[in-house]
Amino acid sequence: MEANRVYNFNPGPAMQPLEVLKEAQAEFLNFGGSGESIIEISHRAKEFDAVLNQAKADILELMKLGDDYDVLFLQGGASMQFAMVPLNYAVDGKVGNYVVSGSFAEKAYKEADLLGVGHIAASSKDVDFRHIPTQDEIKLSDNAAYLHVCYNNTIYGTEYHYIPETGNVPLIADMSSDMLSRPLDFSKFTLIYAGAQKNLGPAGVTVVVAKKDFLAKSPKTIPTMLRYSIHAEKNSAYNTPPAFCIYMVGKTAAWLKAQGGLEVMAERNAKKAKLVYDVLDNSDGFYKGHADKDSRSFMNVTFRLPTEDLEKKFVEEAKAHQLCGVKGHRSVGGMRTSIYNAMPMEGVERLADFMEKFKKANA
Amino acid sequence: MEANRVYNFNPGPAMQPLEVLKEAQAEFLNFGGSGESIIEISHRAKEFDAVLNQAKADILELMKLGDDYDVLFLQGGASMQFAMVPLNYAVDGKVGNYVVSGSFAEKAYKEADLLGVGHIAASSKDVDFRHIPTQDEIKLSDNAAYLHVCYNNTIYGTEYHYIPETGNVPLIADMSSDMLSRPLDFSKFTLIYAGAQKNLGPAGVTVVVAKKDFLAKSPKTIPTMLRYSIHAEKNSAYNTPPAFCIYMVGKTAAWLKAQGGLEVMAERNAKKAKLVYDVLDNSDGFYKGHADKDSRSFMNVTFRLPTEDLEKKFVEEAKAHQLCGVKGHRSVGGMRTSIYNAMPMEGVERLADFMEKFKKANA
Repeated sequence: MEANRVYNFNPGPAMQPLEVLKEAQAEFLNFGGSGESIIEISHRAKEFDAVLNQAKADILELMKLGDDYDVLFLQGGASMQFAMVPLNYAVDGKVGNYVVSGSFAEKAYKEADLLGVGHIAASSKDVDFRHIPTQDEIKLSDNAAYLHVCYNNTIYGTEYHYIPETGNVPLIADMSSDMLSRPLDFSKFTLIYAGAQKNLGPAGVTVVVAKKDFLAKSPKTIPTMLRYSIHAEKNSAYNTPPAFCIYMVGKTAAWLKAQGGLEVMAERNAKKAKLVYDVLDNSDGFYKGHADKDSRSFMNVTFRLPTEDLEKKFVEEAKAHQLCGVKGHRSVGGMRTSIYNAMPMEGVERLADFMEKFKKANA
Repeated sequence: MEANRVYNFNPGPAMQPLEVLKEAQAEFLNFGGSGESIIEISHRAKEFDAVLNQAKADILELMKLGDDYDVLFLQGGASMQFAMVPLNYAVDGKVGNYVVSGSFAEKAYKEADLLGVGHIAASSKDVDFRHIPTQDEIKLSDNAAYLHVCYNNTIYGTEYHYIPETGNVPLIADMSSDMLSRPLDFSKFTLIYAGAQKNLGPAGVTVVVAKKDFLAKSPKTIPTMLRYSIHAEKNSAYNTPPAFCIYMVGKTAAWLKAQGGLEVMAERNAKKAKLVYDVLDNSDGFYKGHADKDSRSFMNVTFRLPTEDLEKKFVEEAKAHQLCGVKGHRSVGGMRTSIYNAMPMEGVERLADFMEKFKKANA
């Protein structure tokens, strides 16, 4: 780590791989010998096409998905997907089914509800979203268009450790905060989406990975830009796509491949998470985790300290150790340390070490 | 100009000011001494707030607008605005009125038509969009929600040289390809929007400048992300905004101020455009402009050559002179040379010189 870099534990935008940043910096004025910056190149140029198509291929390869899946690069973040999913699929009397496992999961449901097509199939709201609803808790409605899950709940620090079984009902997942952080049988999902700014690149592009036949189903009565089918037909260039963000996602996917793929990332991420959870579990209650143990996230570790004064002190002292962005979301309070793919092991080691010392000094 | 840079005449993404690119490159790994890249900084951090608010202030200052106007940074390009405008304003039985002066103007109309709320107030489609409809040609419908115009038509090379008078009906303009290229009495417009990738920065952010009281009017029945009111209330951070693109738009606005503002840009842009139009007008018909003289654009000069073979040859030879992206849109054919704010004078001089020589060699 360079002396002037800080370890950024923010939930997103978040740390990006230093190698990726350096590569982008080096070629920022002259992309691939074109005499242009990547932000100046036409989105219709063959050089940009190559960038976009390589990014797609690398993402599918990392996810071990075949050519029955497509990758789209859209705009508007997960929040726009909350509207696009029901507008495209909860049609003809069908009902969007939702597992409400956190704030963003609930926002997704509310967007369907606004359209009059939402059903809560399970919820853990009554227990402060401390756990992920189990398979048994999920009750699909009649005529379910899909089941929508938020696979990692950034604010609460919970994550699915099973893939919901939905029979013939398409499974749709918001993976904004754990996309490409570990291998899964992604073929069980019909549509996956993620805002890039946590594990994938800069804010400003939403990666959608979905079955091609599903993407083709969009009704022609909804606004053009909200139809998945249009973006699929036009290879994400119906209009000018967010070129720089796509380029950065491509570089990040290539970096993930170079690291050894999702298996290697999962191993590293599990090791990083264990470092922090071990501190919580061995702190004699000084640090209290928010999430139930069986629902703990590999990406966001949330915990409280004995008092709010100590929490303030923790945030301030962490900063002095080059550990920034550790403050939790106001709805949970306390701390949230986000340790996505690009957070180096030594950042988490430094955090765990700081937490031990802070406890000793203040317990 | 650096030896390895090309002059990029593409319609967008397009050339950006070299000074801006160099600044962004220099601080890409460490923004403002934060120890983070601008793409890693939290959108809730005060450092990013300062970037966003300075960009807003500089844009309003350049446009000489007061604090009854607000600036939003949205996603989805002009194409998303085509849907958002009627969804927000052509409501309660009111009708969206459109001047159809080119392909994008027509796309905007079609999006309103899809919702059943579009009216064509004027059109120049029957004359291949060679001119901008005049004030006299514009016939507003009863119960007009607004008049929507596309202020510069990239594909056809036409631009408004007057501001339509609409009485009490709000005037809305797509200025994607001429935003901040010249001073206008912007206070005559109720809402202006522009995809950034021509005059303002990288693709991936849409700049909306509008009256605050108009932005507040969004119906609560449309998807959350499509409501202007939400983005205005949340200062463009309802969800994670496209931070890097906003940062680049901010740098570009600061660069425009440093150049002397819109008056200076208008003078330069008029001089650049005159260089090319003079070649057309003095070519004894070798180069035939598409646009009628009274509707000529300062931003995109469109013209045909005597044969398609000569047009191909022109594109190839231009490339060898570091002049790239001169090929026209398929719907007009021929050439389109886009000479936005960031195209240096010497790029246009080189183009004009090449055009003269090409004519002499091939007439």
